[in-house]
Amino acid sequence: MRALVIGQGHVGSAAVQALSKRGEVITASRSTDPSVDLDRLDSIAELFESIGRVDAVVVCAGSVPFKPLGQLTSGDYRAGLANKVLGQLEVVRVGTEFTNDGGSITLTSGILAREAVATGAVASLANGAIESFVMAAASELPRGIRINAVSPTVLSSAPEYFDTFAGFPPVSPELVGQAYVRAVAGVATGTVIAV
Amino acid sequence: MRALVIGQGHVGSAAVQALSKRGEVITASRSTDPSVDLDRLDSIAELFESIGRVDAVVVCAGSVPFKPLGQLTSGDYRAGLANKVLGQLEVVRVGTEFTNDGGSITLTSGILAREAVATGAVASLANGAIESFVMAAASELPRGIRINAVSPTVLSSAPEYFDTFAGFPPVSPELVGQAYVRAVAGVATGTVIAV
Repeated sequence: MRALVIGQGHVGSAAVQALSKRGEVITASRSTDPSVDLDRLDSIAELFESIGRVDAVVVCAGSVPFKPLGQLTSGDYRAGLANKVLGQLEVVRVGTEFTNDGGSITLTSGILAREAVATGAVASLANGAIESFVMAAASELPRGIRINAVSPTVLSSAPEYFDTFAGFPPVSPELVGQAYVRAVAGVATGTVIAV
Repeated sequence: MRALVIGQGHVGSAAVQALSKRGEVITASRSTDPSVDLDRLDSIAELFESIGRVDAVVVCAGSVPFKPLGQLTSGDYRAGLANKVLGQLEVVRVGTEFTNDGGSITLTSGILAREAVATGAVASLANGAIESFVMAAASELPRGIRINAVSPTVLSSAPEYFDTFAGFPPVSPELVGQAYVRAVAGVATGTVIAV
């Protein structure tokens, strides 16, 4: 199993650690070579052309602004959609042809698709978009390729988010990693794996 | 009750017909004067400055491309998000200050947030974004202003969509109109009213 994991933050690290026990994992982020930046859609095609075909594509990147609703500008909405939504969609669009028959694509949404926190409106927007998209796209992917989203709550390894997620029990990176293993090694498609 | 309804398609017409029985309804679309076009964010502020304060803002506009997944370009994704998502968000952002205390804002998503049809991936994406956004934004709106989304299935008045929605029982414009009445005259906030 040859997997590409895009994103090296808390979630991406958890995915890489878990998936590395099952095969070859190629990591890519803004600081790798070749690099990838979800804000630069061209960098996504360049990445795939550089690494070639894989069995699993996993995206754990995508950032959104956290601000009180009344302070959000149209630019904030646009930026959140550009990075976390359009960036992940471009990985699907370009990455499908680089994914082997019967392989999988796994995107990352987040618990704010279903739960509200103050300052989280753009995150909810982006996560809701990704979750409905994977549900819809699953039946139209070619060659038995599956697509799912992992939707994590706050990670225990990310205390900088504990105030925003007050009262949300943090989840361990190990459990988050297992959600990506389930998406990659399982049979489900069009689903959201909440963790 | 003074309401603004943006959009004069099948859904907008249903909303206007139902809401007109309960008060004054101002309609706005690309062909009205003043006009509004969700693709031109400036036109939204111009509209509100022209009509002044209202008790209810209802958006029934927003178009997305319907295409097989493999034919979708990054421009298609961007266009769907720009019109149906960023356009509706701008109505919330600008329209909040023009909404009276205790008033309401009602957006329109659609059944494809939760159900898949061929060629519907961008619609699902946009509808999912809107539904998670209203859930998240509700607690952060000022002055008791509520926000909800009406999420219709295919309308019986729109036979041009029957093939795409094969096997989905169409809903009458009257029932769709009542969903907007419920959003405007009810007490719920942060909810999705499926119809």
